[in-house]
Amino acid sequence: MAHHKTPLLDKITSLDVLRALPESQLQALAGEVRDEMISAVSQTGGHLGAGLGVVELTVALHHVFNTPEDRVIWDVGHQAYPHKILTGRRDRINTLRQTDGLSGFTKRSESEFDPFGAGHSSTSISAGYGMAVGRDLLRRNNHVIAVIGDGAMSAGMAYEAMNNAGADNSNLIVILNDNDMSIAQPVGALSSYLSNLITSKPYQSIRGIMKEVASRFPSEIEQTARRAHSLAKEIVGAQSLFSQLGFFHIGPVDGHDMSQLLPVLKNLRDGEVTGPILVHVVTEKGKGHPFSGPNHEKYHAVPKFDVITGEQIKPASNVPNYTSVFAQELIKKADADDKIVAITAAMPSGTGIDKFQKAHPRKSFDVGIAEQHAVTFAAGLATEGLKPFVAIYSTFLQRGYDQLVHDVAIQNLPVRFVIDRAGLVGADGATHGGVFDLAFLSCLPNMMIMCPSDEAELVHMMETAAHYEDGPSALRFPRGEGQGVLLPDEARALAIGKGRIVQDGSDVAILSLGTILDEAQKAATQLSAKGVSVTLADARFAKPFDKDMIAKLVQNHRALLIVEEGSPGGFSAHVLQYLANAGLLSSDCAIRVAPIADAYIDHDSRPGQLAKAGIDAPALVTHIEEMVAIKTPKKKSQE
Amino acid sequence: MAHHKTPLLDKITSLDVLRALPESQLQALAGEVRDEMISAVSQTGGHLGAGLGVVELTVALHHVFNTPEDRVIWDVGHQAYPHKILTGRRDRINTLRQTDGLSGFTKRSESEFDPFGAGHSSTSISAGYGMAVGRDLLRRNNHVIAVIGDGAMSAGMAYEAMNNAGADNSNLIVILNDNDMSIAQPVGALSSYLSNLITSKPYQSIRGIMKEVASRFPSEIEQTARRAHSLAKEIVGAQSLFSQLGFFHIGPVDGHDMSQLLPVLKNLRDGEVTGPILVHVVTEKGKGHPFSGPNHEKYHAVPKFDVITGEQIKPASNVPNYTSVFAQELIKKADADDKIVAITAAMPSGTGIDKFQKAHPRKSFDVGIAEQHAVTFAAGLATEGLKPFVAIYSTFLQRGYDQLVHDVAIQNLPVRFVIDRAGLVGADGATHGGVFDLAFLSCLPNMMIMCPSDEAELVHMMETAAHYEDGPSALRFPRGEGQGVLLPDEARALAIGKGRIVQDGSDVAILSLGTILDEAQKAATQLSAKGVSVTLADARFAKPFDKDMIAKLVQNHRALLIVEEGSPGGFSAHVLQYLANAGLLSSDCAIRVAPIADAYIDHDSRPGQLAKAGIDAPALVTHIEEMVAIKTPKKKSQE
Repeated sequence: MAHHKTPLLDKITSLDVLRALPESQLQALAGEVRDEMISAVSQTGGHLGAGLGVVELTVALHHVFNTPEDRVIWDVGHQAYPHKILTGRRDRINTLRQTDGLSGFTKRSESEFDPFGAGHSSTSISAGYGMAVGRDLLRRNNHVIAVIGDGAMSAGMAYEAMNNAGADNSNLIVILNDNDMSIAQPVGALSSYLSNLITSKPYQSIRGIMKEVASRFPSEIEQTARRAHSLAKEIVGAQSLFSQLGFFHIGPVDGHDMSQLLPVLKNLRDGEVTGPILVHVVTEKGKGHPFSGPNHEKYHAVPKFDVITGEQIKPASNVPNYTSVFAQELIKKADADDKIVAITAAMPSGTGIDKFQKAHPRKSFDVGIAEQHAVTFAAGLATEGLKPFVAIYSTFLQRGYDQLVHDVAIQNLPVRFVIDRAGLVGADGATHGGVFDLAFLSCLPNMMIMCPSDEAELVHMMETAAHYEDGPSALRFPRGEGQGVLLPDEARALAIGKGRIVQDGSDVAILSLGTILDEAQKAATQLSAKGVSVTLADARFAKPFDKDMIAKLVQNHRALLIVEEGSPGGFSAHVLQYLANAGLLSSDCAIRVAPIADAYIDHDSRPGQLAKAGIDAPALVTHIEEMVAIKTPKKKSQE
Repeated sequence: MAHHKTPLLDKITSLDVLRALPESQLQALAGEVRDEMISAVSQTGGHLGAGLGVVELTVALHHVFNTPEDRVIWDVGHQAYPHKILTGRRDRINTLRQTDGLSGFTKRSESEFDPFGAGHSSTSISAGYGMAVGRDLLRRNNHVIAVIGDGAMSAGMAYEAMNNAGADNSNLIVILNDNDMSIAQPVGALSSYLSNLITSKPYQSIRGIMKEVASRFPSEIEQTARRAHSLAKEIVGAQSLFSQLGFFHIGPVDGHDMSQLLPVLKNLRDGEVTGPILVHVVTEKGKGHPFSGPNHEKYHAVPKFDVITGEQIKPASNVPNYTSVFAQELIKKADADDKIVAITAAMPSGTGIDKFQKAHPRKSFDVGIAEQHAVTFAAGLATEGLKPFVAIYSTFLQRGYDQLVHDVAIQNLPVRFVIDRAGLVGADGATHGGVFDLAFLSCLPNMMIMCPSDEAELVHMMETAAHYEDGPSALRFPRGEGQGVLLPDEARALAIGKGRIVQDGSDVAILSLGTILDEAQKAATQLSAKGVSVTLADARFAKPFDKDMIAKLVQNHRALLIVEEGSPGGFSAHVLQYLANAGLLSSDCAIRVAPIADAYIDHDSRPGQLAKAGIDAPALVTHIEEMVAIKTPKKKSQE
């Protein structure tokens, strides 16, 4: 595993050892942790840039603070790889994101050193403030430290939390890890504000910083303390956005320089400060990165790579992924239609909007980590007659749910949601598992929902979405490559709410929604080999769905299985409600559903996740066989 | 209708007339609009305070700007009553919130003068920015003005929108209507920041304001313009939170003084300003209110009242509402258990947390309009071993959905969600109709969901929630009064996932969830009179639900109807999924479901809404009769 030597790190068998280490050795230790992390990620793939930026900070925090009694919360856990290496998980670090291995994020069930799990961004200040208030109520005495990136600060919930914590006197330390690049280039006014803050004045000297912190020490006379406080505020960050929200604002501090980090953190630990403090730390994302390239966003998360050459080890494939097919189609449509615009919330590359951005810069909008705004911004665009496509991951759309209901769906505005990562996502695990969108969208009146079963279908559904002006629509597809089918020369708009029969059979039917059709097809093939003739239907639309087609499936088969890559309460649940009230539930056709099991599916390979979810081909075959077995005797007795 | 004379208002048959009115008469016109509004609300009930605060602003905006070409977006439409009076809806203003009458909020389908509908707060800047960008893309030339209250500014989505609009050069006018009281007293650092801004310097003179605005006029030499811009920024709001987010910040301006409002608005209209502008307007909520009292929050929304005496006309009732039963129980539990804490997001009175606040001030947290933060803050509290109860309206929980999934449910933290206004809400209409929570919660692994069918059940379920530490739980109840049953002397924790049989019958069964049980009971009585014997089951738990009980209902009856006050995809959908995979769907028992119809139910009386939703007693009777009719011949033929 090691192309690197780690004499110091090898000694760190516990945090007590780390805490006993002379300060003079911490910088070197950080270097070893960095090498260790690069080596691990080269084998597992994963989030590289974020962790590399906070190596020194991680070492310093664990050296100075008494974790896990003191709570250190890593916003978006993907910056926590160095933290995992130092907190008893070094021996498993090469299992990151692997089946039964370490999670790619912080996770409460994984370690007591992870006080809060996070895969989504911007939650740490709220969680930390809750812990701080809890500590005060329970009269405990520990520190709470939230480490949050500048990109995460664009999210409304970070502001809500700052606004609350800033008005309170609870001790809470927020470390703003400012690397001027979250996943993509940060956007918005806050970003230029932070840049100005750094460039407009020289870094504070250590003495200056200590003086400020000292001014917050307990004072015999409150008046004096107050005056000192005012004075300190004048010196640094007096009128910063954060100080205006009530935080005592320190910094900027060089986040890779132990001689700056340690005195600041020690002062925060030992000084009996009261109230919330923000320490502005400047770091370089991907610091010490073994290779560099033009596409920084790509190094946010990387596949496996060779540590020496930096070459990425990625299985070669000629099959385009759904994201790129979507992007290509959207570009084509926007070439022909001036009203088409695209919106992403800080995921330009993940959603394919980076390509669109190049082709149509004026019609492309990256709002930053700001999903609530993204959705209502799109609603505003739609009121003016534009055709907005909101490209978003399934789980991130959860952040804009009220906006989707209240601003889009109730008003019946034709906003197009292009939901990527809809379904199980493999190594990113439960926090990114896009399994609830069918449930939380299908319940909404006015929604039209399409699910392509392959990339050719996606092309047609993009055409359908572009033409659909009757209300909001959604188009959901999973992470990863398509099925390898030929893309059609011409996209055609589909009939709304109409499914298609993929294969005619006489015995049983499988109604499939989306790309899980490939598992249904495998199941059909296996069943066919066993003499069971299977009709295979592709629903295409989750809402409105094809009632006629479904009624016929029930009427003409002795068993029907409905499969979808989504949670219970989604497509199959709505189909059952229809069948019940249409009087189509009877003993003549057994019906079962195969949505994703009612459990959070941890990181795993895709086949592993499908199996755990109970929607892979073997699970579908079992369902059908059980239905047929149950039915067969009955049929016989009636004969 | 009129205790007041309205000679000027009577002349305003169109906005052209308003625009032609001499400025000297506008203040008087505003007075008449105020009287008209008070008169209308005295007859209909509704939101009084917000509208009264913006009467002058409304008159001034429509006088100066060319609505509807210029878009005026009222954040939380409840401040739009004066706007409705002036924009062709005066003759229907006494139908506010009545069946088939005007909506209590802005509504696109109601008027072209309502460019964006809003019942939830803090959406206007995002929507307005979308309209501004849309205008620019389509090369139109209109103004876009978002009017937003200071309370709404505590919401993350307002910040997200400011952060985006502030980084752009699109013309967008945000009017911050600062009345220092949104629904309740505003909370958070922002609130004290705004107070400081007002009190720390004298109001700007008109000349000063005009000078600043003038400095934004086009200039021959860009350099000069820039210098002027910097200068102006120095003068006013130089370092304000809003200017740091990129907005040119003007104010504060007295929002009740036409001689201050008009020149500012005219300058904004005529000056070829570029970029986003924030005008800070100070108003008094409830200005000119006919009566005043100690409880300001109560005058946010009022029942009908007598204009002369101010006496509120409210039907007398001895039956407590669910909110107050919840509050009382929570206070009792917190008396006995130090770990119980309560959280509300700006709805202390609406959720009953005001009472809790009085009894347990240290354990009560009002985070402001900040639902995302509220949920994750509660999660943080739970990690420290506290027992947080988040009291929230069903539709506002939509704002914290990702936090509920990602921070609470995935981590399986025992946060208790007490979901008020769950179900149809009458006069507040679709934006406040709490109909989706069963769908968006039931799909989540780890959730436990309880639905009391009456206030005695609520008492027991509060006990259950307090003791339940296995994961997140939710308890949902509707707006309004209980059923009038006796409250139990002692609360007892219920067996998780167990329902109860309310009435034993032999023929058909109704499985009911929550307070809709009263309609089910009425239906059972009517059916009984027709000779159909009905078993009535109260599910109590939506998740996990009582599989044994439900299996028996299916096995022992020839028909089962499942009813719930929630959208499709909720409880009945999940029950059908269970029945399907348990092999319990057969011709022996017809099954139908009665969730709320797949439509947004507009404001109406409760009986009217239940009928439209298809879940009132007559609808339930029809379902059963149709099932029995279909079944009867079959049964006979089999005999």
